[in-house]
Parts: sequence; C-alpha cells; structure tokens
Amino acid sequence: MCQCGQHTIHALGKQQSHCGWDCDNRPELTVAPGDCIDIEVHDASGGQLSLDSGVDDVINFDFDRINPVTGPVWVEGAEPGDALKVTLLDYEPSGWGWTANIPGFGLLADEFEEAALHLWQYDPDSLSPALFNEFAKVPLKPFAGTIGVAPPEKGFHSIVPPRRWGGNMDIRDLAKGSELWLPVGVEGALFSIGDTHAAQGDGEVCGTAIESPMTVSVKLELEKAQNLPAPKFATPGPVTRHLDAEGYHVTTGVNHDLMTAARDAVRYMIDELQKQHQLAAMDAYMLCSVCGDLRISEIVDAPNWIVSFYFPKSVFS
Amino acid sequence: MCQCGQHTIHALGKQQSHCGWDCDNRPELTVAPGDCIDIEVHDASGGQLSLDSGVDDVINFDFDRINPVTGPVWVEGAEPGDALKVTLLDYEPSGWGWTANIPGFGLLADEFEEAALHLWQYDPDSLSPALFNEFAKVPLKPFAGTIGVAPPEKGFHSIVPPRRWGGNMDIRDLAKGSELWLPVGVEGALFSIGDTHAAQGDGEVCGTAIESPMTVSVKLELEKAQNLPAPKFATPGPVTRHLDAEGYHVTTGVNHDLMTAARDAVRYMIDELQKQHQLAAMDAYMLCSVCGDLRISEIVDAPNWIVSFYFPKSVFS
Repeated sequence: MCQCGQHTIHALGKQQSHCGWDCDNRPELTVAPGDCIDIEVHDASGGQLSLDSGVDDVINFDFDRINPVTGPVWVEGAEPGDALKVTLLDYEPSGWGWTANIPGFGLLADEFEEAALHLWQYDPDSLSPALFNEFAKVPLKPFAGTIGVAPPEKGFHSIVPPRRWGGNMDIRDLAKGSELWLPVGVEGALFSIGDTHAAQGDGEVCGTAIESPMTVSVKLELEKAQNLPAPKFATPGPVTRHLDAEGYHVTTGVNHDLMTAARDAVRYMIDELQKQHQLAAMDAYMLCSVCGDLRISEIVDAPNWIVSFYFPKSVFS
Repeated sequence: MCQCGQHTIHALGKQQSHCGWDCDNRPELTVAPGDCIDIEVHDASGGQLSLDSGVDDVINFDFDRINPVTGPVWVEGAEPGDALKVTLLDYEPSGWGWTANIPGFGLLADEFEEAALHLWQYDPDSLSPALFNEFAKVPLKPFAGTIGVAPPEKGFHSIVPPRRWGGNMDIRDLAKGSELWLPVGVEGALFSIGDTHAAQGDGEVCGTAIESPMTVSVKLELEKAQNLPAPKFATPGPVTRHLDAEGYHVTTGVNHDLMTAARDAVRYMIDELQKQHQLAAMDAYMLCSVCGDLRISEIVDAPNWIVSFYFPKSVFS
C-alpha cells in the first residue's frame, strides 16, 4: 500500500466493479493525477469459486459474471491522446487461488475439451512457491491480468479481449514496481483493474493463471498528448529471477504460422512432462499455463518461424 | 574446447562447409557417439564481409554463399527416429562481427528497404558488452544460429529456413552448456553447424544478429528411437542474466494476428528508441535485433493476442 505520505490515498471495494468496458459507465471514484488508490479486486470468477469448489462449478460458470474489474475511476484532466501512467505500487495477495480448464477456452481448447479445476493455497507473506499436488512447486509473482481504460467507441465491449486501451492483457510482468502507460480514449480515462494472478507464464496457455483475489495499490498520473499506439510498460528489474535459477527445458514449434508453432511447442512440452514426470496431460497443460513461457526465437528465417516454450527446471527440483 | 580427456576429439575447418541441406552431401568427418569436435565456422556472409567492409558489400552479396555451415558429420549408428544430442561445450569467438539490414529480409523489410551495415569489435576473452557507436552497449552471449541434420527428402534444401530437422533456428539460448536434441532424418544424421552470433535477441528482428566467426566445440551423442517431433533443448542455468539486471522497457502489439502484433511491438520500440535516445530508425532496428526479445504475453484472450518486445535498460545505462 502507498505509505509515502505524499499522496492522497483512496480506496475502492470489490463490489465497485463491472464486467465490460463502456464509456458511459458511471465512475465509482474521482481522483486527481498523482493520487494513489488501494483497490480490492475479485478473482476472475467474480466470487463463483472458492476453496470448496469442484469441477462442476466450472462447468456451471455464469459467464456474465466472469472477469470483473474494480472501477471505473475518473482521472481529473485526462483527455483523449493523453497517457495514463499506472504505477503498480503493491499487491496484497489472499493466499488462495484456482486454475481451470474452461471448455472452449485456451490455446489447445480443441484438444482439451473437458473442464478441470485445480485449487491452490499459498503463503501470502513469504510467497514461497506454491505446491501443485506432490510433484511440482510453482514460483509466485503476483500481478493484475486486467488493467485498462474505456474505449471511445460507444456501447458495451466484452471484458475478454485486450485492446489498444489495455484491458485483459495478462502480461505477467505487470508486477510490483512496474510502470504501465495506457493510451487514454475518453475524457476522465475511466480506469479499472482486476483479474489478479499469483503466477502466470508468458502466454497463459490454458487460458487461466493462478487466479487469486488481492488488493492492489496503484498510483495514477497523467502524461499529456502522448498519442500512444498501444500500452507500454517498464519493469524496475529482472523479470524471471523468481524461477530461472536452474535453467529451462525448452520445446520448439517450427512453422510458417506463428499460432501453429506456438500450439506445437506447448503440445510437445505437455508430452515431455507426461513422459518425464508421469503427469496427466491436463495437469501438464495447467502447469504450463502458470509457469511456462512462450518466446518467439526467430521470426525472420522465411518461411519458417520458431516459437519456443520454456519450462523452468526449478518447478521439479 | 573439450578438455575432459575422456573423448575422442576431432577437428573440422571452415573450408569443410556447405550452403544447403542435402542428404546426398558427402560427409567431411565420421565420428562415434560420444566423440567431441572442434569446429571452425564462417560468419554468415561466408567471408564476404570483414572489418574493412562497407554497405556496398551488403548490396552486392552473393546469396549462393550465404550462411555456410561446417560439416556434414556422419555419426556412426544414427538412424531415422533417433535423437542426436548436441552438447554445446564451448565457443571461442573471434572478436569481430557485423549486423546488417539486407533488403527484402527481416521482420519490417517493407519499411526498411535500404541496405545498412554496422561493424562490431569486442573483447573475445572478457566478452564485455560491445559498443554500438557512442550511445549503447550490447551484452554478449555467443551461440550458433544454425545447427541441424539433413532432411530425409532428396535434393537440395535452402539453408535459410529452419525445419523439423533444425537448421537456421537462431535460438539465442543455444549458448555454452546448453544441450540440444535434434530428430535424426537420415542414416548417419549428417550434422552441420555454423552462423555463429556474438549476441542476438529473441526474434532476430532485423534478420541478422552480431554475425561473428568462431570455433565451436560440441559433443555428439545418440538417443535411440526418440521420434522427436521437433528440436528441443535444455539450458544449464538462467538465460537472460547477461542483460536483465536493470529491467526492461517494453512495447506491446495487440492484434488477432500474432505476426501483426509482433511487427507492431517492434515498430513501437523503434519509435521509442528514436524519441528517447535520438537514434536513427535503422540503428534502432538493428539494436532491437541484437538485444531485444519478442515474447508472447497472452495467446488466449480471444480474439486479441499480445506480443511484447522487451528492450533491456542496461544497454543505455
């Protein structure tokens, strides 16, 4: 939480939320540039899951309640063309979370058609790696998956896809200390945040991370007339040291289509984890989503590109 | 170089090379599984460039001589379906290299139509970051861009694209100590290696890295009947610690098409480097290629994916 004593600190509760972007949404709070906000957010199920849940609760999801974000926040003086600078001051995690395979959703949705649910408990103070059954431990790095402002186009816009205005970006390096610049599309910006994750790999390949409710503290500032074409961010230090100490096992996909290459690389890693660690395919898929990284190794040696999937050795050590 | 004293050590000179994959290429050397080889390789121009070169030498490239690989090496007992395990024991770099924009080649070839050439000198012993003019210093991590075996399909296959059988993979983490497993497609495997780089980012976005001749030491082993669908590898430790200490500036591309998202992310970083550091666009593009990384942040929030381009802050510190 912001403790510098120099800023006005506001608070928003998780009930002050919405499940879609709309430039006509009524602001829940008005702040001045430079103010800080402590923001309570739901998990991505919007409270439909808990540590008592089972896979039936995934099958019976009410999708109208999925991925709520807390807000919107009106930022005084924000105008289209400005950049809203969001400093992610701190995350206060809850200590529990879930990872699911939701039918129809995820990079390999056509191959993993069944619903699945894994529940996690972790120490919110130490953030020690979280156990996945008896055989794996996943390093944690809390961040918010959805951070955005309202699009200028009138009407309701689904919360699921990210856009030029941010939203459900699921960028795992928007962790404590990172600074994010969002293009402002409407007067007041209408900033919202939610979808906090205790850990995720680059790609979020099964479609969910360690979905975990938290309180997020942010500072909001304005940079006038930046005309950003898309979100950009900066990290205060290294981004993979929570998991990279022992190196990686890496599979590759070689194809003229990046999507096919990405799918192949992930599928081959699932096969490897099944063979090397006797995991069920679904468990391997969910583990890949919370700690493995998709990187584009080369995108110039026409006509074939290489997408690589990096799985940290430390998870099984 | 292999100094364990337990293996038979062979040597190959850079004149023992070829510029295309062909299962009928005559082996330059025969080894037994477990043997080591010290392999001298050309730079990717095949000796057409030197520290005396200018941009005209890029314009006048003889493309039939591009990207030579040293080999092929016949591995006794190798059969289709086996995996050839290549341990990258060591790199002995030359201390010079080049980065070029070759017209028609590279992720933004349609926007960077002019030839360009940057020549590098670096300390091959300390591997201290290499200076790019007065304003940037690029951390080094030598590796071989092209490592492969012959495809089973008869005839000549261009050296440019990678395939299931490896080849021009340009995976910057195939550095000292990494282990690579290649599917074997033909009897004897017919292994070759070349295209050494002193540094490269994930993506190799302008199409070239710090192209630099070296001697590479490898150990070749066989794992029978693995039936690998594609190359895979393992790294002995972290892969980005040579450049990540101060964190990153990151641009994003948000699009339903991964290629468009990747192009956008790189283009936006070039714009940032121009604005923040007064670089010429071409210099920024070449710098991105040698030290910036393309990552897939999310590939599941349909219909829009996010590709992020990570540029290490240390380059300008």
